Amino acid sequence: MALIVQKFGGTSVADADRIRNVARRVVESHRAGNDVVVVVSAMGASTDELVALATDVSENSHPREMDMLLTAGERISMALCAMAIQDLGVSAMSLTGSQAGILTTSVHGQAEIIDIRADRVRAGLEEGRVVIVAGFQGVDPIGKEITTLGRGGSDATAVALAAALGADVCEIYTDVDGVFSADPRLVASAKKLDEVSFEEMLELSGAGARVLMARSVEFGRRYQIPIHVRSSFHDGVGTWVKEDVMEEAIVRGVAHDTSEAKVTVHGVPDKPGVAAGIFEPLAAAGVNVDMIVQNVSIEGVTDISFTVPKAHVAAATEITESVVASVGAAGVDVDDNIGKVSLVGAGMKSELGIASRMFRVLAEHGINIEMISTSPIRISCVVRGDDVEAAVRSLHDGFRPSAEPEEESNV
Amino acid sequence: MALIVQKFGGTSVADADRIRNVARRVVESHRAGNDVVVVVSAMGASTDELVALATDVSENSHPREMDMLLTAGERISMALCAMAIQDLGVSAMSLTGSQAGILTTSVHGQAEIIDIRADRVRAGLEEGRVVIVAGFQGVDPIGKEITTLGRGGSDATAVALAAALGADVCEIYTDVDGVFSADPRLVASAKKLDEVSFEEMLELSGAGARVLMARSVEFGRRYQIPIHVRSSFHDGVGTWVKEDVMEEAIVRGVAHDTSEAKVTVHGVPDKPGVAAGIFEPLAAAGVNVDMIVQNVSIEGVTDISFTVPKAHVAAATEITESVVASVGAAGVDVDDNIGKVSLVGAGMKSELGIASRMFRVLAEHGINIEMISTSPIRISCVVRGDDVEAAVRSLHDGFRPSAEPEEESNV
Repeated sequence: MALIVQKFGGTSVADADRIRNVARRVVESHRAGNDVVVVVSAMGASTDELVALATDVSENSHPREMDMLLTAGERISMALCAMAIQDLGVSAMSLTGSQAGILTTSVHGQAEIIDIRADRVRAGLEEGRVVIVAGFQGVDPIGKEITTLGRGGSDATAVALAAALGADVCEIYTDVDGVFSADPRLVASAKKLDEVSFEEMLELSGAGARVLMARSVEFGRRYQIPIHVRSSFHDGVGTWVKEDVMEEAIVRGVAHDTSEAKVTVHGVPDKPGVAAGIFEPLAAAGVNVDMIVQNVSIEGVTDISFTVPKAHVAAATEITESVVASVGAAGVDVDDNIGKVSLVGAGMKSELGIASRMFRVLAEHGINIEMISTSPIRISCVVRGDDVEAAVRSLHDGFRPSAEPEEESNV
Repeated sequence: MALIVQKFGGTSVADADRIRNVARRVVESHRAGNDVVVVVSAMGASTDELVALATDVSENSHPREMDMLLTAGERISMALCAMAIQDLGVSAMSLTGSQAGILTTSVHGQAEIIDIRADRVRAGLEEGRVVIVAGFQGVDPIGKEITTLGRGGSDATAVALAAALGADVCEIYTDVDGVFSADPRLVASAKKLDEVSFEEMLELSGAGARVLMARSVEFGRRYQIPIHVRSSFHDGVGTWVKEDVMEEAIVRGVAHDTSEAKVTVHGVPDKPGVAAGIFEPLAAAGVNVDMIVQNVSIEGVTDISFTVPKAHVAAATEITESVVASVGAAGVDVDDNIGKVSLVGAGMKSELGIASRMFRVLAEHGINIEMISTSPIRISCVVRGDDVEAAVRSLHDGFRPSAEPEEESNV
């Protein structure tokens, strides 16, 4: 008897058949004696369809009304899931984010969960029901305004709810089998990982692994809620993301990210306050800066490069060009044909020479490195966009991550 | 400077163009110096699409979840309307039924409005905004459950909100020009009525006029809110529904209804308690009985006929057949090829001979009358379904309703 939060993404609830499939899984867990809370995303492409409707009506930004609009998506899927569960003879009720007590900041489209007052969820569980909660949405308790959490929001809802309820596990059902040692679409020998530590998962997510967003992992780590990432299409064990893993890997996985572009500011005078002069206005404009690299200065002049999501390139260029004169720089270059390749592994902390081996592997495959950034358990290289696939394959081949015992996880 | 509640139905917000059109009309009223509250239905066929989705997932009845599902419809249209209004430079905000304080009974799918606590609506108006409220939905204040109001619910929301806010008028925008003296699809000479009294409109709605549901008219009458039924496609004056009308018509209009079937219980012993024995179980099962006619008894035995919506025929038959033995009746007949034709006019109260003239007109056109029922301002006849169109035409021709002055209404 445990308390389980199960999150099903848009693909898992994309049509009536899949919703009935979700219901079967939920009811199975419930019948096994568990209390089950279900968090659902909007059906399949329905969020995109709502965005398209909004674009059709208006080309301007209406953050409050956009949240009102988009939250209709989970409302639809959660009601349908509740119906399908009831059809299997188990009492169920759906709750909106607001009804479930998901309290957030007031930033429409990008709200952060600040508290969860899950009284109605608990009451539902006490009545023996499965409670279905809308993912991705909440309410700002001061303005009473409906908010959405932005990308990966449903995962965040699930993990935060699991933390608030003191759940034993948060299961994230998805259309892949778990977290892999590399993207299996690129690397045929990539393996599903049985276990990944929170710390590693945070780095993998930040380095481009799409299966879990960093914010959900962060919640899991802060409140010590084990996250089980698994397939919604079969019963196999997926990947456990948790604090302590059985075996510490030097390289747990190879991640890549082609969603960013590189902006370079040339001829920057090497004096105090210049970097702040560039990055403060970017931050103020909400541009999401990832890697920042500054070369050693030659004759008092240096280059500063940084990466931003491609969607932020226009804003980043405009802002950077406007500050070039004020900081006395020479000019700005934008390059959107780049990719980031990263090695992640908690064992790196105690192992020397991983970085140099990484650079050697890339060199042997004729891949040029344009930027480098490291954390204690991660090394990332920016390479040409066209080189990303080859880089991922050669690194996976060179480091052979996930050489773990074959038996299932013991959690 | 007035306070106006404007209600736009599904056809009026069916796509982006029409939503922008609604926004233009709303902004026009706002710019003319009025406070404007807008009530919207779900877009076009979207409620039907949501019902189809639910049917796809489950063939069972899930009233609570159905309400959760269907309320997504107005959420979408109201957010889009708010965006379109803001695009025209007027501040706007959308509110769900719950946010707008539409408090209802707890009967899912058929809730009744019991109170309106429109604080957020008033606050929005005081800030100079147009407030858009989701029609058709509310919240049960005890269980905090989301409810829907059933057919015609958005009109009810609009009129009730107008009453709660003390609005000067409730404008119901629709895809027809107003209330007609007969269905213009059947009667080419049918005329738009400039004015109809609340009392007449209640009878017309009950007799099958689809443009306004009786429950909204009842709200308007109880709180004395003039209702202006008008086209969402042009600026012309529609029909004013209000307490006192300029001219009292003997026959205001001819209404018809082909949505009902006739159930006849034969050989009913004519003794006390028999009618109750038939109609109590029907009421308990939620069967909506309209006309009831009992013939004079011959040798202590009579027939009782009644009409019910075709959707309730199966339930009505089952229940009636099960009580036939207990009341000692001979049997039950069901006839779904019938129609009801009604004359409505407040002037009937003081005019003799309208009924006999009606029967004469029908007889002259070879139309047989199967049931008759009257109110002080209405006469209804049940005829063969195939005779309904001819009956409406001949009565409209014979009574020439709406022979009103040609000038516009003075309201």
